[in-house]
Amino acid sequence: MQKKEFMQRTEIGKLGEFGLINHIKSKIKLQNASSELGIGDDAAVISIDASEKLLLSTDMMVEGIHFDLAYTPLSHLGYKAVATNVSDIAAMNGIAKQITVCLALSNRFSVEAIDELYDGILAACEAYKVDLVGGDTTASPKGLIISITVTGVAPSEKIVKRSTAKKGDIICVTGDLGAAYVGLQLLRREKEVYMADPTMQPQLTDKDYVVGRQLKPTARLDIVHEFDEKKLIPTSMIDISDGLASELMHICSQSQLGAHIFEDKLPLDNRTLETISELNLSSSACMLNGGEDYELLFTVSQVDYEKIKNNPEISTIGYMVEKEKGVNLVTLNGNTVPIEAQGWVHF
Amino acid sequence: MQKKEFMQRTEIGKLGEFGLINHIKSKIKLQNASSELGIGDDAAVISIDASEKLLLSTDMMVEGIHFDLAYTPLSHLGYKAVATNVSDIAAMNGIAKQITVCLALSNRFSVEAIDELYDGILAACEAYKVDLVGGDTTASPKGLIISITVTGVAPSEKIVKRSTAKKGDIICVTGDLGAAYVGLQLLRREKEVYMADPTMQPQLTDKDYVVGRQLKPTARLDIVHEFDEKKLIPTSMIDISDGLASELMHICSQSQLGAHIFEDKLPLDNRTLETISELNLSSSACMLNGGEDYELLFTVSQVDYEKIKNNPEISTIGYMVEKEKGVNLVTLNGNTVPIEAQGWVHF
Repeated sequence: MQKKEFMQRTEIGKLGEFGLINHIKSKIKLQNASSELGIGDDAAVISIDASEKLLLSTDMMVEGIHFDLAYTPLSHLGYKAVATNVSDIAAMNGIAKQITVCLALSNRFSVEAIDELYDGILAACEAYKVDLVGGDTTASPKGLIISITVTGVAPSEKIVKRSTAKKGDIICVTGDLGAAYVGLQLLRREKEVYMADPTMQPQLTDKDYVVGRQLKPTARLDIVHEFDEKKLIPTSMIDISDGLASELMHICSQSQLGAHIFEDKLPLDNRTLETISELNLSSSACMLNGGEDYELLFTVSQVDYEKIKNNPEISTIGYMVEKEKGVNLVTLNGNTVPIEAQGWVHF
Repeated sequence: MQKKEFMQRTEIGKLGEFGLINHIKSKIKLQNASSELGIGDDAAVISIDASEKLLLSTDMMVEGIHFDLAYTPLSHLGYKAVATNVSDIAAMNGIAKQITVCLALSNRFSVEAIDELYDGILAACEAYKVDLVGGDTTASPKGLIISITVTGVAPSEKIVKRSTAKKGDIICVTGDLGAAYVGLQLLRREKEVYMADPTMQPQLTDKDYVVGRQLKPTARLDIVHEFDEKKLIPTSMIDISDGLASELMHICSQSQLGAHIFEDKLPLDNRTLETISELNLSSSACMLNGGEDYELLFTVSQVDYEKIKNNPEISTIGYMVEKEKGVNLVTLNGNTVPIEAQGWVHF
């Protein structure tokens, strides 16, 4: 809970539209040879190798719905907005290449605030080797809205959909689950404490891991590169934005299959478990429905198990079954319970 | 000024996120062979011919800034949002192929309202042979925000930038100017009248042309096809969203040139002129700074003049000069006055 003190405040109106575009443009260095023309014309020009397909994904983040600037630094927000888009391309087994950024923001935001947001956006662009090639910046009557579209590429034969899992395939998940959700609960608690008494200091010591997972998630591009090295093509894949349960339901419904996953196989970091205990949450609920971990959930054929079994970043959590058997969790005490998807409930 | 009465109102929350996605998805038919995978996975999959480049553009429209639902039917808004993006691709001399649509909307919008918006979006998709292949729908604390990203293609040698006009090139504009701005002034006047006295009937008889130009603009894809037939490649091009003056300044500054244009050459429809007189506006201001006409402003080399001179849809309005001579308008009475760009002044 700290309010950033800017050395100065420059009103956006002072720069004007073209001044603002030039200001942003001056910070951008294109890294990919495929980005032939970036910001500054009616459209960006991009080359795509004949051997590759274009992947295209988009999302929108709205202040008050997806983020709260009381505990989200603008640079982290910018970074996260890019990382989540890169993650969508990774979930197709592709490599992100370009983004466009649309911003709508009210006049409570200064040029310095926009700079901080773009610092995060451009830091993520550098980390993921993605080029910012276009966008639109406009006023909003209230709050901040960010919409990012990402392009990526992958050879046709390596593209992995949600709909192509096969019965008997092994279900895998990268990293660990629930931390981003637990981090969010902590941040919300600290905000409440601060709102009630602004002299209170935040109690976030030793909470770097879960808070970091919420504020600055990582797209698992490393796993896409590893698949390539190991010559492994998953049979289906999705990234975990809404929560493991919801994403598993997508793979099952689109592949017309069921699944069995095992609670004792779900990966949980000790630091997440500690905070779960402190906050009196349910660890299985955090792992199944928490969301925003941006790990990859994927299936592999049994013959490919050897290629992943020794990877500490990959957990095998279950297997695909006939549709009629449903989508189920085998709990720690051996009960089999059906899993239900949630999706957002914003409205 | 009429309020649409819906037969029924279904809350978005009743469908839920996945229900809403399926509801939208069920309306979509993909038309382009290049749209290999549409809505429903982490990213769309698109094929690009080896002989072509990808063009990518994006923009955002915010309720209360870019449109007023008091006089904008949602279907027209959806149509316009697509047309303006198709226009950006046309301004590169390219053909739009796919769009993604991000929507943020408050709970005052029902499923029926979203349907009306998508009816317009999909009508434009059909008119321009563009496929809706992805998107994101989310809640907003206030109002409606639409962000569309468009892909297009063009062979490398046919792509036209803003920066490549040459001294002596002829400046051309398609269609006529100022109508969309004049239409907006009319709609605003009618809204004021209605707000002051809701029993008043709107005075929009015989105003179809200017109102239509504001509410349902046309992307000049026909001109792009005509360039192709005539084997004409403009030396520079931009579409008119902010107004002729502003767009001409972009071509001049990016081409490092000046320009002379002639007021008596600027194309004005008689129906626009009539309304300009009624509203006591300045016709040159409407044509130069009105904006939202989505006509194409382009330059051609003098040897290509023959290819366009008999086209009633194209007016030649001036020529490019050295940078030092500035960007000037020769007025009806023969004075030469410098032109200044505006851009938006939302903040």
